[in-house]
Amino acid sequence: MVPVDERRPVELDKIIHERARLMILTYLAGLEGKSMASFQEIKDALDLSSGNLSVQLKNLEQAGYIAIEKRFEDNRPVTEARLTQKGSRALTQYMDEMERIIQAARKSAAE
Amino acid sequence: MVPVDERRPVELDKIIHERARLMILTYLAGLEGKSMASFQEIKDALDLSSGNLSVQLKNLEQAGYIAIEKRFEDNRPVTEARLTQKGSRALTQYMDEMERIIQAARKSAAE
Repeated sequence: MVPVDERRPVELDKIIHERARLMILTYLAGLEGKSMASFQEIKDALDLSSGNLSVQLKNLEQAGYIAIEKRFEDNRPVTEARLTQKGSRALTQYMDEMERIIQAARKSAAE
Repeated sequence: MVPVDERRPVELDKIIHERARLMILTYLAGLEGKSMASFQEIKDALDLSSGNLSVQLKNLEQAGYIAIEKRFEDNRPVTEARLTQKGSRALTQYMDEMERIIQAARKSAAE
């Protein structure tokens, strides 16, 4: 049996846990050198449909986890997204919680 | 940027990724000494509604990830569930994949 202290309710942030949103956030967290990624770059990197990516970016923006900026490049609109501090903290917390769940499951299975 | 080899598409098993199902599977994986848990035990441990637990157990059984047995105890029906080998393998694979995602995100963020 998993010890009592490891059996507190699972607290996985529902906004982050959705698969596409988790992919977007980890992608943005992994941006090196630059802090923003364009809609097209995220779409290509994660192989998401435009519709799904649009919806999930809006959801993440509403949660305050990402910031979206629109600007013009060669007269064409470009949408860019970046992880906010709030988003970075929430993602770290989610990953800590997920690791706790995995470690508890692995530990018990090995015993 | 996350190195190319770490940017292959995320392959998180959709059956396992759903929050309640992930909780059920990790709970069953963590059963020590005994291999089966009753409906009531799982319900209490994970704080799920009877309706939700019922639906998710059926989904997991259909995927072949758990086996469900019904028996009578003191003339009352008792439903019990256990992780199958297929379920155990799928859960291990899911946890490996999730750890890969987390490690890639943490590594990039630290660079």
